[in-house]
Amino acid sequence: MPAPTPIYIIKIGGQVIDDKDALSGFLHSFAKTQGNKILVHGGGKLATQMAAQLNIPQQMVNGRRITDADTLKLVTMVYAGGINKSIVAQLQSNNCDAIGCCGADGNIILAKKRTGADIDYGFAGDIVSVQSEKLGRWLQEGYTPVIAPITHDGNGQLLNTNADTLAQEIAVALSAHHPATLIYCFEKKGVLQKADDDDSVIPHINPASFETLKNNGIISGGMIPKLENALKAVSRGIEQVLIGQASEFHALINHKSGTRITHDT
Amino acid sequence: MPAPTPIYIIKIGGQVIDDKDALSGFLHSFAKTQGNKILVHGGGKLATQMAAQLNIPQQMVNGRRITDADTLKLVTMVYAGGINKSIVAQLQSNNCDAIGCCGADGNIILAKKRTGADIDYGFAGDIVSVQSEKLGRWLQEGYTPVIAPITHDGNGQLLNTNADTLAQEIAVALSAHHPATLIYCFEKKGVLQKADDDDSVIPHINPASFETLKNNGIISGGMIPKLENALKAVSRGIEQVLIGQASEFHALINHKSGTRITHDT
Repeated sequence: MPAPTPIYIIKIGGQVIDDKDALSGFLHSFAKTQGNKILVHGGGKLATQMAAQLNIPQQMVNGRRITDADTLKLVTMVYAGGINKSIVAQLQSNNCDAIGCCGADGNIILAKKRTGADIDYGFAGDIVSVQSEKLGRWLQEGYTPVIAPITHDGNGQLLNTNADTLAQEIAVALSAHHPATLIYCFEKKGVLQKADDDDSVIPHINPASFETLKNNGIISGGMIPKLENALKAVSRGIEQVLIGQASEFHALINHKSGTRITHDT
Repeated sequence: MPAPTPIYIIKIGGQVIDDKDALSGFLHSFAKTQGNKILVHGGGKLATQMAAQLNIPQQMVNGRRITDADTLKLVTMVYAGGINKSIVAQLQSNNCDAIGCCGADGNIILAKKRTGADIDYGFAGDIVSVQSEKLGRWLQEGYTPVIAPITHDGNGQLLNTNADTLAQEIAVALSAHHPATLIYCFEKKGVLQKADDDDSVIPHINPASFETLKNNGIISGGMIPKLENALKAVSRGIEQVLIGQASEFHALINHKSGTRITHDT
């Protein structure tokens, strides 16, 4: 039996999506990268802009959008329609056989409406299961899934789901049968020693070094939950998490740029 | 070798999509129908309503929308995002393993921007090719494709494509290897002898009877191009075209309601 094929699960965030040239450059590098890969994308500013134009009030709590019924309709249109299909068309023009979908398509990601939280997040979905066999078969057939952060509950209700979490859950599910690498592309070159110095990227972090970096105050603020999340991912079977810049995607995937997070030393 | 599997290609129009209960009832019947089926949906009034809210002026010529850049973004969001995913989630809740896509996904429908017409239709796409093998494989794997009328040109440009035409081209492409039935679900019970009498459905039309009906003035107005289109479809290899009401889908598919158009007598 041949060794299981490695799979890359790449999440690109809002800042890349909002910048037409940055997105186009990233998609070009992404398409050229050999191997099995899945792209998960966030939303960018478009949903917020359109909500303002359509007079749909937006409420954000702790950086998360409260998804009321009108907002759900809007994000479904923007994420699973506008952004998703624009990415797919660009990847196709780069000879990458992309297939855009959300969690409802093929029932690949089942979620349930978040309940019991202190805050009513509205139509926010927490992931219940990922059909990794289907995603695996699509990859085997030569497709590159491009996944919008919209899921469903199996009873006809679409749900808005955090794209970082979605990428992680997909990677964990696939890691049962494949060496899986989870890649977060964001605006910085990686996890930095000094927040204002782009050349101070920390090349490797594991649970022990994370504690030291945190205790020394080198890692602080919003980077702490991001890294805790990445460390949780590698403790759940994902081989490695890479964090770096979308514009350096090729270097990032080849460990020549960005921060690599693993469970072991 | 087993006989090729029959395939149904069903197009639902705007009036069904705009009516939540009608759509839900149709999707329930559709999901229960055995066999290989592909659903093509139009847009409904939502795009027009949103265009007004977003101050995107809409120009219609001969019932066709002129697709400027802003309108293209809008219809991509509304058709391939909002409507498509809502249909997919509803079908999934009816145990139908739907997978929503547009022509760019998997490169299934390649189109080219319409040029040379008297009118500049903007980003309107005329179909160049349909990857029927891919659609056939998805059906074989148990998926029900749900297709939004957005295509692409292979160079990264999405295009707005007439849903009736899209359904016909998909049916013609699949008819090369499968007996294909093309079904148009619209607001009437079928092609009527008397426009105001819903019980005057003409059960069967072929090229000869069409000429008679036209010469006698029984078929007139907008029904003439619709039927010419259906007759063209059956002359191109599609086994039959069924025209009838979405709410009578089960009866329609079993030839107990609606109008059946064939090439032969």
